[in-house]
Amino acid sequence: MALFPKEIDFFEIFDRASLNIAKAAELLVSLMENFDNVEQRAKEIYEVEQDGDILTHEIMKKLNKTFITPIDREDLHALACSLDDVLDLIWGAADRIVVFKIKESTKEAISMSKDLLTTAEAMHKALQKLKEKNYSHVQEYCIEINRLENRIDRDFRDALGKLFDDEKDPILIIKWKEIYEHLEDASDRCEDVANVLESIVLKYA
Amino acid sequence: MALFPKEIDFFEIFDRASLNIAKAAELLVSLMENFDNVEQRAKEIYEVEQDGDILTHEIMKKLNKTFITPIDREDLHALACSLDDVLDLIWGAADRIVVFKIKESTKEAISMSKDLLTTAEAMHKALQKLKEKNYSHVQEYCIEINRLENRIDRDFRDALGKLFDDEKDPILIIKWKEIYEHLEDASDRCEDVANVLESIVLKYA
Amino acid sequence: MALFPKEIDFFEIFDRASLNIAKAAELLVSLMENFDNVEQRAKEIYEVEQDGDILTHEIMKKLNKTFITPIDREDLHALACSLDDVLDLIWGAADRIVVFKIKESTKEAISMSKDLLTTAEAMHKALQKLKEKNYSHVQEYCIEINRLENRIDRDFRDALGKLFDDEKDPILIIKWKEIYEHLEDASDRCEDVANVLESIVLKYA
Repeated sequence: MALFPKEIDFFEIFDRASLNIAKAAELLVSLMENFDNVEQRAKEIYEVEQDGDILTHEIMKKLNKTFITPIDREDLHALACSLDDVLDLIWGAADRIVVFKIKESTKEAISMSKDLLTTAEAMHKALQKLKEKNYSHVQEYCIEINRLENRIDRDFRDALGKLFDDEKDPILIIKWKEIYEHLEDASDRCEDVANVLESIVLKYA
Repeated sequence: MALFPKEIDFFEIFDRASLNIAKAAELLVSLMENFDNVEQRAKEIYEVEQDGDILTHEIMKKLNKTFITPIDREDLHALACSLDDVLDLIWGAADRIVVFKIKESTKEAISMSKDLLTTAEAMHKALQKLKEKNYSHVQEYCIEINRLENRIDRDFRDALGKLFDDEKDPILIIKWKEIYEHLEDASDRCEDVANVLESIVLKYA
Repeated sequence: MALFPKEIDFFEIFDRASLNIAKAAELLVSLMENFDNVEQRAKEIYEVEQDGDILTHEIMKKLNKTFITPIDREDLHALACSLDDVLDLIWGAADRIVVFKIKESTKEAISMSKDLLTTAEAMHKALQKLKEKNYSHVQEYCIEINRLENRIDRDFRDALGKLFDDEKDPILIIKWKEIYEHLEDASDRCEDVANVLESIVLKYA
């Protein structure tokens, strides 16, 4: 059973939205690794986030104007919301670094950001394959996203453990805990994307 | 295309629910500005929250007993949940002030609460206009809610920045951070309400 | 009006999923009460959580492969997600105790865990009764879950109040606040389960 043209239209925007997220994740890795010109780097991520908002708005408008079945609509809506959340959380992590006036990076923040970038790239590939109706490859990338989410989960636990073991300043603990939570939440939302993709593929494959 | 009578029934309860939220937001502004009889003031907000619970329950019961299309049902359910969340978070902010035994207000808490009250009033007007089928005015108030949400976002960032810059007691930082987060979350849920309203208007206008 | 066989199939898995949650809650109470071999006890809860993941996956797969009405699908999906969240949060609470290297329990943690176990047992009974089409008993257990959720809400407020009154170490405050929040969130998700159950019963009873 082939997808209807209407869904194909959506998948083209989702493809662009996920490429945009990968761009934000790349800028976040650079910020975490270099930790110079932090305000300027955060501003660049903000601009990517603003582009993402325009894409989300485009999807929502199309969803309200297109006649599709309720079940498909539910999937496409959940996909749009989760992608939007991932981008918000990446921007949120960068912004907290500015607001909290963090002076230097941690190994854990670099490692979590890198894994998040790899996840974002797998998500982009999954959505590309969906657009191309290459369903078995969609599933492969979904498995990859789930594997990466488990890794970031462990990253996060390790980062928290190390933070509470080594850091004695409670204020710095509050700050880094919140940044790590943003990265972990972003990864959870990527897993939500993979779950919706798997459910779409199950229906159409 | 006119709305069906069934939806009109719902919109009448949503109108009352949003008026109730504006009432809670007004009591919160008074609490933050005066900071006297804090327990008594929090109790008054709790009573408004209890009234809201009854309205939510009424909507949910009606939703389960009324035959409407799945898409409309989804919108009305999302609307009810978001309105319920806004009220819970306003009450939560007031309650934390009691539980944390906060002794004095901050300029930032007063300013965020006032902006939240303005948002609640715009939300009430939007739902009044929806009840009256005045769709173009619904859209105007939705734009106003989005504008206010951006302002509260900036308020929140500034409040966090000031808190971490000026406050040296980590325990007070934990307490105020949580109160500010409640106010920011309440504003996010108002934005969710605006998004659902825009999608309803797109379908019927 | 009787339930369709298709839904009955789902209710059988939900019955098992809720029994699994009650098992995890029981292990959590033992952990909180004994506070010995904490890592081993947390590992046992992790294994129960993994079993739950398999059940969630089974439900989601069935949901994607079964033709049911969109409204029922929405209910069953919400039910699966909320049950999954409860189990994640129980495991999360146990895991934080390990990661934060907590040395001793608190009266409040024991009391919240016990109330959560009672809630999990009521939830399991509600889902058993649903499977047996005994709708009036489903409703009774839902009222019981709501009553318990209110109690855990008060437990949580008291636990927070006591933590900020008695504990002077901000790092311990951060740690216990997060553990209490996990337990409170788990109870909120149980209330979500009760809400979905009430809506299912309203439709079929």
